[in-house]
Amino acid sequence: MSFLLSYARPALLALALGATAPLLAAQPPAQQETQVPGVYRLMVGQMQVTALHDGMTRLGAALLAGAPAERIQARLAAQFLAAPEGVSTAVNAYLVHTGTQLVLVDSGAAACFGPSLGQLLANLRAAGYAPEQVDAVLLTHLHPDHVCGLRDAEGRAAFPQARVYVPKAEADHWLDKARMAASPAEAQGFFRMPQEALAPYAKAGRLQVFEPQALDLPGIRAQSSPGHTPGHSSYLLESAGERLLLWGDIVHSHAVQFALPEVSIEFDSDKAQAIATRRRVLAEAADQSLLVAGSHLPFPGVGRVKREGEGYAWVPLEFSPLPSR
Amino acid sequence: MSFLLSYARPALLALALGATAPLLAAQPPAQQETQVPGVYRLMVGQMQVTALHDGMTRLGAALLAGAPAERIQARLAAQFLAAPEGVSTAVNAYLVHTGTQLVLVDSGAAACFGPSLGQLLANLRAAGYAPEQVDAVLLTHLHPDHVCGLRDAEGRAAFPQARVYVPKAEADHWLDKARMAASPAEAQGFFRMPQEALAPYAKAGRLQVFEPQALDLPGIRAQSSPGHTPGHSSYLLESAGERLLLWGDIVHSHAVQFALPEVSIEFDSDKAQAIATRRRVLAEAADQSLLVAGSHLPFPGVGRVKREGEGYAWVPLEFSPLPSR
Repeated sequence: MSFLLSYARPALLALALGATAPLLAAQPPAQQETQVPGVYRLMVGQMQVTALHDGMTRLGAALLAGAPAERIQARLAAQFLAAPEGVSTAVNAYLVHTGTQLVLVDSGAAACFGPSLGQLLANLRAAGYAPEQVDAVLLTHLHPDHVCGLRDAEGRAAFPQARVYVPKAEADHWLDKARMAASPAEAQGFFRMPQEALAPYAKAGRLQVFEPQALDLPGIRAQSSPGHTPGHSSYLLESAGERLLLWGDIVHSHAVQFALPEVSIEFDSDKAQAIATRRRVLAEAADQSLLVAGSHLPFPGVGRVKREGEGYAWVPLEFSPLPSR
Repeated sequence: MSFLLSYARPALLALALGATAPLLAAQPPAQQETQVPGVYRLMVGQMQVTALHDGMTRLGAALLAGAPAERIQARLAAQFLAAPEGVSTAVNAYLVHTGTQLVLVDSGAAACFGPSLGQLLANLRAAGYAPEQVDAVLLTHLHPDHVCGLRDAEGRAAFPQARVYVPKAEADHWLDKARMAASPAEAQGFFRMPQEALAPYAKAGRLQVFEPQALDLPGIRAQSSPGHTPGHSSYLLESAGERLLLWGDIVHSHAVQFALPEVSIEFDSDKAQAIATRRRVLAEAADQSLLVAGSHLPFPGVGRVKREGEGYAWVPLEFSPLPSR
């Protein structure tokens, strides 16, 4: 009996003693240690798109320029995002199951930006896929948070069966060793990281540098959207009359840049061109009620753009079940 | 060799033949059949709250009244939600791990409203919990999409260890058999369904009818928020200086009722009172930057309220990892 008193759960004991309701609450299970996997699925016609969360990084508001600082701060505060330590910002990638191929668009940061990023492979597995099943990786651009995930922790190709597609203007810029050598020391990492990330694929004959208008993948077209980087490209999926634009880094701060498209971010290679591209893409998305997905919009980063006042506003897609088949 | 030619995956075969890149793509794995589980976690001080998706139901725009139909349609269209078949609307419930107890707030619709709802138990299990571990179920009100989930498919208590808490004004209204008998035939189901859902708990001595101001659970206070139903109540969690208001059915159409709080929904018991309650709760939430969660807001239904123009706007919380311990 002393054994029972020591080990029986109090609630079970109360029931055993004939109470209709437990007199003492049972010890509850432990709280969960981690968030659910950052995975979300949607259909685009016959294609299935899986948003994969690579994690979060902090972007200081001082990186944003092009409007008075008070106006930028007011926009952040209106979204409850003003934070002296920087705005917590998602890094998303998208796995497209075209029906015949698995195509990953961007690959996350792996270990290039610290432990708050680098969850893409874990989330891809949680989504029911293996990295060996990926047929192609399309890169919107060669910044580290989009390319470092091409390599695993041992430096090997994380997607050993995949061809990797790089827009030509990106390759011309970031893979140019002479340009790297001529760059300031603090900028050289932005050349070195994509060169290292692409090396195993280049060595295996799997690196494909392409002109956006010449990309030839079924249901996927590339659209040049330069400014953030010289060859920044977006990918338009189209299937059975439905479309989704994977726009890459058109917006880094949803709280600020939809309302104020004239605000650029420090990392933009050519700020004026980045702003012009953003204005063009936002106008097209709004005019066409186009479904878009963005690398740095709140996960899963999928939604639509509406006109609001002088600028635009973000309308995220609602969590919904998949249509039944 | 014919065996190999027939059964080897083409990509592996290409590798075996010495090609550096496969000449033929491997057959991809099948597309996933279902959405990821509707589960999302957040911390409120030391409490862990798990949002659980019960599914989606369609609400026709004609159920909304209190503003010109064109104004309501314009609000829906601005959120890309105008749909002749009705607006797809979430049903959410919330599991609160207080540290010492598991408290479920609302229980979903089970089979009461068809197969697009009733996923709460599956999502609770996907979240790592068992229904037998739930110590208490707090009900915001006794509408079927909040109470039917109290029973499993066999009509037994789905949460066999739980006490079920019902605000007194709700019990007085919906559990009153004389009132039910005096109601029009088409309204009687709204009495019958909660009576049936609560029966196994009443029989087991686990039904607790309470006055909101007298609710005595650590870190959880009840707030009377009547109008949608006579005893509609909201639950305020507070832990380590953080707060979350589980507000129940203060808003049914986020696209319309934040901007136009004067719009009521057909199901409101007392429309004028529901509108007055909504105005009061929205003002308090906005003034306090209070984190709130709503049963019919886009899953996970957690966010904040900001003032915008004459009304308000919804600012959903961003998907984020749990803070590390």
